[in-house]
Amino acid sequence: MRSTARSRPVKTGEGSPLPSLMFRAVAFSGRGLRILDQRALPGRVSYLMPTTAAQVARAIETLAVRGAPSIGVAAAYGLAIECRRLSDRRLRSGLRNAAETLRTARPTAVNLSWAVERVTRVLSGRDLSPARLRNAVLREARRIAAEEVRRSRAMARVGSRLLSRHATVLTICNTGALAAPGLGTALGVVFQARLDRRRPRVYACETRPLLQGARLTMTELLRVGVEATLIVDSAAASVMPECDVVLVGADRVARNGDFANKVGTRMLAVLARESVVPFYVVAPTSSFDPGCPDGGAIVIEERDGEEVRCFGRRRTAARKARVYNPAFDVTPARYVAGFVTEAGIIRRPFGRNIRQLLTR
Amino acid sequence: MRSTARSRPVKTGEGSPLPSLMFRAVAFSGRGLRILDQRALPGRVSYLMPTTAAQVARAIETLAVRGAPSIGVAAAYGLAIECRRLSDRRLRSGLRNAAETLRTARPTAVNLSWAVERVTRVLSGRDLSPARLRNAVLREARRIAAEEVRRSRAMARVGSRLLSRHATVLTICNTGALAAPGLGTALGVVFQARLDRRRPRVYACETRPLLQGARLTMTELLRVGVEATLIVDSAAASVMPECDVVLVGADRVARNGDFANKVGTRMLAVLARESVVPFYVVAPTSSFDPGCPDGGAIVIEERDGEEVRCFGRRRTAARKARVYNPAFDVTPARYVAGFVTEAGIIRRPFGRNIRQLLTR
Repeated sequence: MRSTARSRPVKTGEGSPLPSLMFRAVAFSGRGLRILDQRALPGRVSYLMPTTAAQVARAIETLAVRGAPSIGVAAAYGLAIECRRLSDRRLRSGLRNAAETLRTARPTAVNLSWAVERVTRVLSGRDLSPARLRNAVLREARRIAAEEVRRSRAMARVGSRLLSRHATVLTICNTGALAAPGLGTALGVVFQARLDRRRPRVYACETRPLLQGARLTMTELLRVGVEATLIVDSAAASVMPECDVVLVGADRVARNGDFANKVGTRMLAVLARESVVPFYVVAPTSSFDPGCPDGGAIVIEERDGEEVRCFGRRRTAARKARVYNPAFDVTPARYVAGFVTEAGIIRRPFGRNIRQLLTR
Repeated sequence: MRSTARSRPVKTGEGSPLPSLMFRAVAFSGRGLRILDQRALPGRVSYLMPTTAAQVARAIETLAVRGAPSIGVAAAYGLAIECRRLSDRRLRSGLRNAAETLRTARPTAVNLSWAVERVTRVLSGRDLSPARLRNAVLREARRIAAEEVRRSRAMARVGSRLLSRHATVLTICNTGALAAPGLGTALGVVFQARLDRRRPRVYACETRPLLQGARLTMTELLRVGVEATLIVDSAAASVMPECDVVLVGADRVARNGDFANKVGTRMLAVLARESVVPFYVVAPTSSFDPGCPDGGAIVIEERDGEEVRCFGRRRTAARKARVYNPAFDVTPARYVAGFVTEAGIIRRPFGRNIRQLLTR
């Protein structure tokens, strides 16, 4: 199950290799599906080799793989590996069941249901033989993965124009290559600036309760050689006046520009406004939900209170202590300066401009 | 060194026993000074029995005892125990050295230097014999401790009038009996409302990096039977719209009403303003610094980055990861609805009203 810490260079499909320092969260090859177990980072680089869609769903639920685009890609491949083990007779019904299991693994990120939807659309080709159906599912999963890499690189190029030569960026959670295949979303913008030989600096919120900022973002930034400083989330108010821009990802963007992202994002948006710091969301079109009118319609996942009551293996609050542990929060569109997408920066009015983006 | 979890009822000097459920952070008796080791809570209730001022300073530095009023009381008693071991000849110089050691143990809370100052003023009585000097030092330490208990109870009564019958309160860090002898500061207001048979509800921010909210505040609230919900600090933005009031303590209040308190306080102040929730600071006059014109003059203690890089015994960010770990932040006076003190609620204009408070 273990492998080395250095992952292989990723080809983007555009001929340009990404820096070999980038992690690869999800990889599919002749040997099967390989998921980097992000829970063990940074202490240990180990991989899961799931062979069923249910195992992939479990990896998504338990955050072995996380980040909206990455879980979409993992789910798509989850269907591809499920194809391999299903008999011809049970192929279509088994795939539909697997799709449901994957779709419900986590409720907030729209990429998950979007990717599952795209792959299952293949099933509507009623005249496909089982062998062709299997091929079509795998092809669609690979296409989604390749598209996400292209989106990530395009977003990074679009967004990096927002950063001055020595820009100081504040971010939360992990939005690098671990979260979105390629360069990532918000952090991809920083990586791109670094690739362009600029010198961005990053304040990384540690991101309680699961510390994706400390464990993943700091690790990625150190590997790539970006100057980064880790802070507790609530110290964002102390450093905001020094920042030039706030960059965050998104798990679901509503039609009006309200969006869900890691809990703490709304805090950053409010603090950014107070300090007159521009606040940008970096998200591929696959994170926009045309079925969602506004933030009120987004389901916020609540996770187990033990994530907050325990600190490592130590219990820091009584088991009977009541906990409210939302994984995400909703930031109203009014705090957003713009959405950095692979198709350019979406500015106000968001309602109209997001509609245009999604109907192109 | 260990003792039972239930501490003895505390007499306030006004004849009314405090609830026996309250912790007692610092106690002095014929057997010496006893400091509840707050680092081990809630897992273990154990006590330090320091016999030198340097040991008390170390207990303050390492947060075995914390909370602005509590560290003031601990330092005062630290001088009293130092008296016991100093020879007659070295009494005055030894006390001056000890005062310096204690005063510099932590820079931000003014109560520390204020309490040390008050006790060392005794030294200016040049004609006191060594025996009388020792008595005078102990008497002054005891007086400070008793005054803090009275201040705490008075603040609690003043502040509890702000809470409606089922008020929902948001708070950060620990501001209960562990932080301020008696009932505490901000949390004392909640305890008083509960003693008055009201039903306040509390959202407690866990308070990274050292989790005083999870470890101490939740423990105190559970013991006293107040309905409490623990959240990660950055979830404050999610629950703020449900809150009726934000109550926080203070480590130092400047003459203009700017104040320092646990990092994260400024975030709460900004979020409270956004949701139009009144934001009150609960602090005894001993936390007001007449020598401090505004927040810019407050020294913010920076603590070891390892507090943020490690999670329990697990390393969650590389040792070489740069960390900015301020223990406090400064909240501008413009966010404050009022200061709850033992002498009543200080309202705007803060400059004039704080001056009046301090010159009474």
